[in-house]
Amino acid sequence: MSAAVVNPVPVGILVLRGERVESRHRVSYAVTGAAGALRHAEGESDRPVFPRSAVKPLQALVLLETGAAERFRVSQAELALACASHGGEARHVDLVRRWLARLGLDQTALECGSHPPSHAPSAERLLAAGKRPEPAHNNCSGKHAAMLTVSRQIGAPLAGYIAADHPVQRLVAVTLAEMAGVAALPEPATDGCGIPTYPLTLAQLATAMARLADPHALSPARRAACLEICRAMTAHPKLVAGAGRACTAIMTAAPDVVVKTGAEGVYAAAVPKLGLGLALKIEDGAGRAAPVALVALLEALGALPREARAALGETVRPVLRNHARKAVGRIEPAPGWPRL
Amino acid sequence: MSAAVVNPVPVGILVLRGERVESRHRVSYAVTGAAGALRHAEGESDRPVFPRSAVKPLQALVLLETGAAERFRVSQAELALACASHGGEARHVDLVRRWLARLGLDQTALECGSHPPSHAPSAERLLAAGKRPEPAHNNCSGKHAAMLTVSRQIGAPLAGYIAADHPVQRLVAVTLAEMAGVAALPEPATDGCGIPTYPLTLAQLATAMARLADPHALSPARRAACLEICRAMTAHPKLVAGAGRACTAIMTAAPDVVVKTGAEGVYAAAVPKLGLGLALKIEDGAGRAAPVALVALLEALGALPREARAALGETVRPVLRNHARKAVGRIEPAPGWPRL
Repeated sequence: MSAAVVNPVPVGILVLRGERVESRHRVSYAVTGAAGALRHAEGESDRPVFPRSAVKPLQALVLLETGAAERFRVSQAELALACASHGGEARHVDLVRRWLARLGLDQTALECGSHPPSHAPSAERLLAAGKRPEPAHNNCSGKHAAMLTVSRQIGAPLAGYIAADHPVQRLVAVTLAEMAGVAALPEPATDGCGIPTYPLTLAQLATAMARLADPHALSPARRAACLEICRAMTAHPKLVAGAGRACTAIMTAAPDVVVKTGAEGVYAAAVPKLGLGLALKIEDGAGRAAPVALVALLEALGALPREARAALGETVRPVLRNHARKAVGRIEPAPGWPRL
Repeated sequence: MSAAVVNPVPVGILVLRGERVESRHRVSYAVTGAAGALRHAEGESDRPVFPRSAVKPLQALVLLETGAAERFRVSQAELALACASHGGEARHVDLVRRWLARLGLDQTALECGSHPPSHAPSAERLLAAGKRPEPAHNNCSGKHAAMLTVSRQIGAPLAGYIAADHPVQRLVAVTLAEMAGVAALPEPATDGCGIPTYPLTLAQLATAMARLADPHALSPARRAACLEICRAMTAHPKLVAGAGRACTAIMTAAPDVVVKTGAEGVYAAAVPKLGLGLALKIEDGAGRAAPVALVALLEALGALPREARAALGETVRPVLRNHARKAVGRIEPAPGWPRL
């Protein structure tokens, strides 16, 4: 633990109140190419982190590679939703319900648990109608629908599909390890939606994203799957997250990058035109700092056109307002960060 | 900024998923006596922070010292509410409404803005009834009722009582500076509820709290006011915060300490039996880490009986559960922290 105390993870993001720094977020990141060579890094790029939902685009590869997507006529929109941490808007929930219905299932088959939609108006409408959140509202319900689809395809039991030793999760883990260039994954912990989350270093996660961005050296089936995942996410940015969300805003403004957030301050990105992958972790897990850091890194890499940056506005450079809506502060990168 | 990058603020609080550290929170703190002597400190105890709502017990002194409380028959419960960041429960909102009515006012006089109750069941009831949050639901509405009471007492205009140059805010600032032992306060920023928030170092904030805990060397009027504030807060812990909140749980379990949370990871405490004040800041502003750090510090100081610690349970040593309610992690002090 004493190592943690002195480890110099740099301050990357500042929270200002007035013109004075109120809080600070430390950021580690790694940028790699598809062969795994580290191009840029600061902080603890070699320390395992839980990538959480940032690996959803990688977990979704099995939907394509097993033939499940083809057999069960999974649409491009559904593929995007399989990669999503969605806001629980009607467009997300309805798509999940219809997908499950096509499998002859309903949302009782989902083992992800329930939580209110993160999209506040949707959550308020639900409460105002006297309803409770259901599994389809869970931000991971698209991924879970995908895992049920794969279970059906490979003839595995549907019940218990979230367990680490279930054939679907084993398949997902093998795929993740291959993409990240890891011989054996460490023991997983349990993610918010019940499935295993495997520790990866930021360099490994960046490598997996770089291969998603630049799959030319991968097997033909995987190469095709990577390209299809990237196409689906960039074609349907509103399905990957939703209204007011950073992933959606970034992929709308810059349709040639693929970005995916994860809980506890993780962000991953694939930049096909540069053949690069990127992974970052806010040391303290703050979701408010992660998109600000991601966009600063994409800008520094030359992956974000100036117009895209301008179009993003407050989504990724938040102005803090108090309860009377007065602007009282802002969140922004620390001067000189990142040191690319 | 480069100083910030290398400044060794120690990791005090860990967030674990399974048995692996997922996120880390760095903590600065100061513990002082009433004369301002620093007894214990780690991190940036001399760096100004915005104390936010942690100074409410100090801001409330003017309610007593101006004679406003006596003239307007402010009850002990209302005094506790003046020191509160309350949950917007019915007991809080009703008390504010009745207090304002006694002044011949209603909540339209409050300039704090509105936000949904932080007490989730109260927020849900409000939405389910098709109602919107009102100023009385604002967690600071008791403090604002107190400031209106003081305005009335000193013959100042009611409108605009939140401005830094309003006589009430000037009086509050002078009182705060005296308690903290500061010759002149730096320029304020704007707090979440619209009033000025003045930067103080943690050592200064701890000193102010130590004087609240041990006011024997202060003027008779201030001494009496300090004792009355401490009595009110410890007599009405449910009014200072509310159901499920750390301040309430701590003061219920340990009725001889006075604790007050502030936004962006600040916590302040007065320990009368030891004559000590304590102030801490989570570097990244995380509210989840602050009560865990506070209780660890109170324990290390010998300010929290073992039974009290046991009674607190998950309130201050949270177990993290996923959406299916499975325990997946926990928040706890880093081994060896604090180094008292």
